[in-house]
Parts: sequence; C-alpha cells; structure tokens
Amino acid sequence: MVGVDFGTLSGRAVVVRVADGAELGSAVHEYAERVIEHTLPGTDVRLGPDWALQSPRDWLDVLRLAVPGALAAAGVAPEDVIGVGADFTACTVLPTTADGTPLCFETPEQPHAWPKLWKHHAAQPHADRINELAARRGESWLPRYGGKISSEWEFAKALQVVEEAPEVYARAERWIEAADWIVWQLSGVESRNICTAGYKGVFQDGSYPSEDFLTALNPDFSGFIGKLATGVVGDDVNGTTLAPLGGLAGRLTGQAAAWTGLPEGVAVAVGNVDAHVTAAAADAVRPGQMVAIMGTSTCHIMPSDRLAEVPGMCGVVRDGIVPGLWGYEAGQSAVGDIFAWYVDNFGADGHERLTELAERQAVGAHGLVALDWFGGNRSVLVDHDLSGVIVGQTLATRPEDVYRALIESTAYGTRMIVETFERSGVPVEEFVVAGGLLKNRFLMQVYADVLRRPLSVIGSDQGPALGSAVHAAVAAGAYPGIGEAAAAMGKRTRAAYVPDQARADAYDRLYAQYRELHDHFGDGRMLHTLRAIRNEAAK
Amino acid sequence: MVGVDFGTLSGRAVVVRVADGAELGSAVHEYAERVIEHTLPGTDVRLGPDWALQSPRDWLDVLRLAVPGALAAAGVAPEDVIGVGADFTACTVLPTTADGTPLCFETPEQPHAWPKLWKHHAAQPHADRINELAARRGESWLPRYGGKISSEWEFAKALQVVEEAPEVYARAERWIEAADWIVWQLSGVESRNICTAGYKGVFQDGSYPSEDFLTALNPDFSGFIGKLATGVVGDDVNGTTLAPLGGLAGRLTGQAAAWTGLPEGVAVAVGNVDAHVTAAAADAVRPGQMVAIMGTSTCHIMPSDRLAEVPGMCGVVRDGIVPGLWGYEAGQSAVGDIFAWYVDNFGADGHERLTELAERQAVGAHGLVALDWFGGNRSVLVDHDLSGVIVGQTLATRPEDVYRALIESTAYGTRMIVETFERSGVPVEEFVVAGGLLKNRFLMQVYADVLRRPLSVIGSDQGPALGSAVHAAVAAGAYPGIGEAAAAMGKRTRAAYVPDQARADAYDRLYAQYRELHDHFGDGRMLHTLRAIRNEAAK
Repeated sequence: MVGVDFGTLSGRAVVVRVADGAELGSAVHEYAERVIEHTLPGTDVRLGPDWALQSPRDWLDVLRLAVPGALAAAGVAPEDVIGVGADFTACTVLPTTADGTPLCFETPEQPHAWPKLWKHHAAQPHADRINELAARRGESWLPRYGGKISSEWEFAKALQVVEEAPEVYARAERWIEAADWIVWQLSGVESRNICTAGYKGVFQDGSYPSEDFLTALNPDFSGFIGKLATGVVGDDVNGTTLAPLGGLAGRLTGQAAAWTGLPEGVAVAVGNVDAHVTAAAADAVRPGQMVAIMGTSTCHIMPSDRLAEVPGMCGVVRDGIVPGLWGYEAGQSAVGDIFAWYVDNFGADGHERLTELAERQAVGAHGLVALDWFGGNRSVLVDHDLSGVIVGQTLATRPEDVYRALIESTAYGTRMIVETFERSGVPVEEFVVAGGLLKNRFLMQVYADVLRRPLSVIGSDQGPALGSAVHAAVAAGAYPGIGEAAAAMGKRTRAAYVPDQARADAYDRLYAQYRELHDHFGDGRMLHTLRAIRNEAAK
Repeated sequence: MVGVDFGTLSGRAVVVRVADGAELGSAVHEYAERVIEHTLPGTDVRLGPDWALQSPRDWLDVLRLAVPGALAAAGVAPEDVIGVGADFTACTVLPTTADGTPLCFETPEQPHAWPKLWKHHAAQPHADRINELAARRGESWLPRYGGKISSEWEFAKALQVVEEAPEVYARAERWIEAADWIVWQLSGVESRNICTAGYKGVFQDGSYPSEDFLTALNPDFSGFIGKLATGVVGDDVNGTTLAPLGGLAGRLTGQAAAWTGLPEGVAVAVGNVDAHVTAAAADAVRPGQMVAIMGTSTCHIMPSDRLAEVPGMCGVVRDGIVPGLWGYEAGQSAVGDIFAWYVDNFGADGHERLTELAERQAVGAHGLVALDWFGGNRSVLVDHDLSGVIVGQTLATRPEDVYRALIESTAYGTRMIVETFERSGVPVEEFVVAGGLLKNRFLMQVYADVLRRPLSVIGSDQGPALGSAVHAAVAAGAYPGIGEAAAAMGKRTRAAYVPDQARADAYDRLYAQYRELHDHFGDGRMLHTLRAIRNEAAK
C-alpha cells in the first residue's frame, strides 16, 4: 500500500504493509518552486501581499520521484502494491479546464491561474463579505463553522478570482481542491472528497450555498457551483453527492502507472486532507478521540456521534473524518511558529538550550502568563486580527522564562478548546498527539499537566502518509472500513505522558489568569485598535 | 567652587567657575567595594537577599582622590576655591557614634553596622508595617508621600536594625544620611539637610513621626528621633529644625583640608540629594519647572508654590528643593534599566542598532503597546509588585519593534505623571531633562512627541556635581540665593526637542491604549497573583 502526503514545502511517499501498518520505506521530494510568494515562476510578474501559490508540476514530480523512491527504499516489488492514497494541504485549490488541465499551464503569466495554497491570505476582504452576508441572511451553514468561514477556503478564494480576474474565472471550468486534482491525475476520474467539500467548500446537509446567496455576493459568482460538483463518484443527486472517505475513486491509469512505477489498475482512494487522514494513522477514529496535529500550527480533529454548535470550531462535517460520524475540526493558528519566531528574534540560545533551562523551573516560577495569539486566534474566538500578550515580566525575567511561558500559553489555548467542546456537549474522551512537536518531551509534559489528562501519542512520524495508506487499504478492499483498517494499521501509544498532580494543580491557578486575559482581550477592542493603527502607519 | 557627587558606584568631583558655572575640570573615583551585596568586606559574613551596603572608606577616598584630581585637571590653584558642596544618593543611611564614627569601623563583621545603600530592599516588611499603621492611625504625614513610604527610607531601614540587630541599634547614637555624614566629615559640624529629612526622614510640618507612633510600631523604637535630630544648624526649636538647602554647614576642617587639598576654612554647604540638587544645575528651580533625571530610573523634581496631594508622588517637602517653595518628587522605578535588561536578554543587536532600526518606523507601525512596570511602578501607583505587560505582538514583530515599544512605554509613564500633577492642581510649566538618557536623541524625540511639549535639556553631563557647586556658591556668599546662583551657573537649553504635530497626534491614540492597560492592570489583581505564584514556586 502506498500513501502520498502533499505538504507545504515537499511531498512524501510511504510504502506501508497492509497487515500491520509497518512503514517499509519512504522518500521525500522537495518542491522546486516551494511556496510562490513574490514572483511567478519564469516571469517578472510580481504578486501582491499575502499571496501564496504552488506549482502543479511540483506535485506531479512527487508522483514521478517520491513514489518510485519509496518503493526502492522499501525493497518492495511494485506488483505487491494493491492501492494508493493521497492527502493534501487544504484548502489548496486551483482552476482547471474540464479535462483537469491547470489554467496556469496555459497562462503562466496570470497570477489567478495558479493554484492558491492554503496560506494564501489575500482573500480576506472577500471572506469578510461572505461572512457578513451569511450572518445577515441567517444562512443555516454558518453555525457549522463556528459562525465564520475563513479567507483560506474555496469560496473566498474563488470570489477573489471572480472580481480580480474575471477572464480567468470564465475560463475555469473546474474549481478543484488539489487533493481531488491529484487523485484525478492518478485515476483519470474526477471526484470530490467529502472532507474538503465539507470543511473548505461549505457543503452542508446535502448542498452548497444557494445560487441566491452567490448572486447576492456578486452576480458573476452565481454559476460557481457548476465548477465544483460535476462528475462525482457515488450517487449523484443534483450533482452534489460527494465521494466518501476511504472510497474507491478509480483505478490507476497507464499514464500514472508510468509516472509512479506502480501497476496500472491498482485502487486509487478518494482524496483527503493531511490533518484529517492522520486520525486513521493514529487509530483514533472513534467518537471522542481528539487528535491534535501539532506543528507550526495545531489542528484538532475529532469524530463524534453528536452534532453541536461548538463556539469557534473551524467546522463540523457529517462523515468528514470517518463515515457515519460527525467530524469536528478546531485549531490554533500558530504553535510551533510562535516558538520559532521567538527563538529567531529574541532567544539567541536556541530551542534546545532554552528548553533545558525552562524545564528546570517549578510551575509558575517565572511569574508570567501569555496569550498565544501571535498568529491570531482560530479557535475558539475565530479572530485572525488578535495578537499576542505577555504579562508579568520584570527585570529578572530571562529568555527561558518567556520561552516557557509561550509553550504554556499554547497549552492553555488547547485546554480552552477542549473545555469549549465539552461545555458544548461534545465529550473529549482521549487526547492524541501527532505532528512534529511530539519530539519535544518537555512540551508534551506541559500539555499533559495543563490539560490534566494523559496524552496518547501517534506511533509514526509520517502520520498523514500512513493515514493515506490506511484509506487506500479500505479503497482496495483489504478492510471493510476505516475503523477496522485503522485498528490494524494505525499506531497509538496510550498515556505516553501522564499529568503530575502537583504541577496540574499549580497550572490551574495560572490557567485561571489565562482565562481572565482571554476574556479581557478576546473582545478585540484593544488588539483591533492596535492593528488598525499599525496598518494605517504602515501605509 | 567644588561640587562632589557621591553616586552608586563612584564619586565625582567637579571644579566650577563661580561667575558662570563653567566646568573647569573633574575627576572620578570608583569605589573599591562598589555595592556590597553578598559578603561583608574582609569577612566571611554573608548577606541576605535584597541587601545593599556601602563602605564609608570609599566615600572618604573620593575626598582624598577625586577632589585633588579635579583641581589638577582644572589647573586651578587651591587657594582660588571658596567653597565645597556635596550631594549623595538617598536614602543612603548609616549608624554612627556621637562623634560620627561609623559603627562598621568598630564591628565590621556586623551587617547592620554598615551603611545601607538606597537600594537596600530588605526592609520591605518593615515599610509595610509602617504604612499599615500610619494608614490606620490616619497619620497626617502619610498623604505627603502619595499614601505610602518606601522600604528604602530612613524609618524602614532603622526599624529593620531595631528588630534584627538590637545591639547595633543600641550602640547607634546617630542614624544619619550619608549626605549629612560626608558634610560632617568636611566641616566637623553635624547637620541634617531639609531635603533628605523631608523626603527620606518623613519630617513634615516641623516634626518627625510621633513617639506614640514609633512605640506602637515597636516599643524599642520609641527613642529613635533622638538619633536623628540633635546638633542641627539654624534655629534649633525642639531639636527638630533642619539645615536649609544652600546654607552654610560649617567651614572646612584641617583634617578635611589635608584630605582634599583645599584651603582650611572654606565654606562647606549643607548636604543634598543628587536628584534634587540637579534642579539648580539645570537652572530649573522656579515653580512648575519639572526636572526629569533620566538614567537607570527616572526621578522627577519640581518646585511649586502650591501644596496638593498628588496621587502617587514620592513626596512633597516644604523647602525641599529650594527655600520658600514646595518641592515635589515623583519617579519611575525603571527606565534605562528596562532597555538594558531587554538588550542583555532579548536584543542581540545592541542599543545602537536597535535604535537605528526603531527610529525608521512610523508611530504605531509596530502595533504594540507596553506597560513600563518591569521594575514596579513608583508613580503614580506606588506599587513595586506590579510587573510589565507587552500587548500586540505577532509573528512579524521584530526585536526593534519591542525595543521601540519599551521606550514609548516609559514616555507614556512620564505623561501619566505629568498629567496627574496637573489634574491635582500643580501645573507643570516646563519639562527639563537631565541624566544619562539625554544622549539618546531618538528617545528624547519620542518623549517630546508623547508629552506634546518641548523638552528643555540640561547643559551639563555632571548635573549633580554642578548643582552641588551652585549650592556651595550660595553657602560661600557668592550669591544671595539658589535661584540667583542657578541663573548664573546653571545650564539649560530650552526647546531642544519640539513635538511633531502628526507624531504627537498618532501617539495620542496609543497613549489612550496605555491608559486602558494602566487602569486594567493597575489594580494589581492579576499581577500580584502572578507574583505570589512566582514567590511560592521559587521557595
């Protein structure tokens, strides 16, 4: 089984044994163009602020280079592979023709013809208008997204194209998530996975936002749904039924077999989002298993049998993580990014030394509490215009004190999210950690102490690719469902970190201060004012 | 004329021309023992936390080395000198015998026998008790100190001796400010200057705190006034009239002439405090001229013809800066100390580079506002248990942004003080800057813009020593009073920095945010809690 994970800077393929999930070999391909933020490749065309694009050729190179590389590393014969699955960053989305050709292959000098990477943030004004209109009209889908959709998502990015490059928009017969586009390249079949459609495409209760709503946004936006929902797998009711996770998207084409070295005709699984597919890799797809994928940011993914309007969640989507359950997503905009920013700018000693010094301290000995909003607040306030606050510094405060306070602040932010779910009637039974920050054992212990619960940890450092392989195993028919496949192939160590009672009690007192700060600054009155002053001054 | 300034780490002598204040030559002597914080010199005796002592031998060495050095540097013949004046840090205070012998000369192994430097902070519990009792009894002197006296002052430090070393207290026939002790050494006459008596000795309306009050604090403290007020110059009414500033304390003794190389019999001026005497050096001794001595901390000194209870002032003393006027003092606990702390810990680039980068920014472009309470808040909140707050940081915040925000925060703190004076009915007519931070032109411009007023600056970088020379000129009879002497010998450039209208307007918006933070965190609820948690954790 082969899982392919398309990240922000590179793509990774992993060869996984169907029986037990053993990772037999892997290979990484770094994208040549990485993130396109300043100038379009091969041109002099400059991009505006907050733009972030990617090149589809980089993605195809992952198929051509990383997949064969992983096979070679695993020492597995191609004919032993029975399926392939892929996951992607999201919402990473591109305009194509009806046959799936990216428009940027035709007009590379046109910025809007290129795929917009998840972190393209230039569509904020468009998102604002969508949110205002949806709130005013009381659109029923809005509460499913904590009351606000993101500028990163499909509709905001598409509306930007409509208004800034109508000729590109007109040529775009499809507006498709990269996760689905890459599956289309592998299988020759266009599909739309239920995960991105729900979380990024605002598909709820069987439909996208109404024509009426789109027309009210901009009359030229009215036909947009036609670019999304055609040619799906499964029961196609009104052109809007989507492909289920773990489903079979199609079979590997001859062309894709030539690229990858895999046998033509093997199963190609329906696409998925990197964070969401990690739940399967951690064998955490049962109700109440919250998986936190902790890296530069943190994404929280949790299946549940209950539907609730959890304040500030990113989204709740039926079948969005695993068929038959509601899938919740929440997040923290910046986590590892905060520590990196701090070390790069203020902590000459580096992560390891700072961690070593911070670890020696008793809880609260630094006298500090911080708000972890240096990248805004995704959950539970859904306000990207918030910013960080550090309280309690004295002339005796040392760099490791602030470093520790920043780590703790992100743990408080996580606790706030967990408590918000539980208060909303959605129990969090188990907290499972995946992602790059797992390697910082001190940080993990802080989280266990602050959350007052044992932490489970994923047993793989290639979670998304392993998860894609799990999905591919289901698509190939090796298991009846994701739950069974995850149980056999996923890897999770329970209670890898357990809270210390005394430290947890001490953190309770600090968390109470965090909550006070959260409530005080959460209204954004001061932080929005400072940002407005900043933006005016920067003009 | 010779002025001698006794600082925290060194003493400086300056030879000044009587006619116009020209500084003809100077010399510095660094104290051999500097600040004694850990072990008593020549012993194994360890000191507790927050202790800070000095050695009287270091002070005498300033007379022996710096005064002749300054004369030599000036190329002035000793016989042309007609007077000498001295100023000192305060409250720096010591126990002596009736003939002025420091007790530490007799029992050097006894910590409490040594002079306690101004920044000895181990008497906080004693200050707390004094404040509580005074508040409960409604002592009339308490409002003259903004409602609280400091642990740095004479009574708190003496009460610590009473309770921790009663045998030393019993042997101490005198409890005397170093400013007065050094004048005693020069003139052979014991005097008590009205400035330290008022600001540090709680002398108000003709008397010290009552016997009754002292007895209530501790019965053993009841005779304390007898150690303060004997042997004063001037009209000695009930043993409590003090020596006026600019007065003649006595004439140089043969012994002191031998030390200093000055002629026996020249005038010795009454002692003074370094900050307060700087007003004379800046020719700023008229009502409403606020002198800010800006260094590691900032001290604000202002004569006024009006008596008011200004919230959070350090003190108001009749004749405390210049005879015939009320002398106000306020302060900011940490100013230059904040910038030094930041650069030492978080700003690898250093002051100059950070200033250069910060200076290029438009007002508010960093999006930050900070509370300048990293060393507590002296005025207007009088709360040393407050701490710093930084608001508005994002992942784009750079070291120079925070550096600039810290500079601005101290300017907002100054504006808060100025506005508090004016709201209390004590007008601030002119803002005059002295001290080491004068050399940072960017910082000065920030202050002018934030305060929305022109800044005058002192024309000397040896302000206290020049001020002592001005006082000595009065004592020697060269001028009828401090005002006349300061007008002739003091140096001040008016409107050296003028506010820029646009920047001042922009700062108004940020200052409004500062005020909000000030009001929110000023109650100490969160900051005291964090400090309490810190102190418990550090145990």
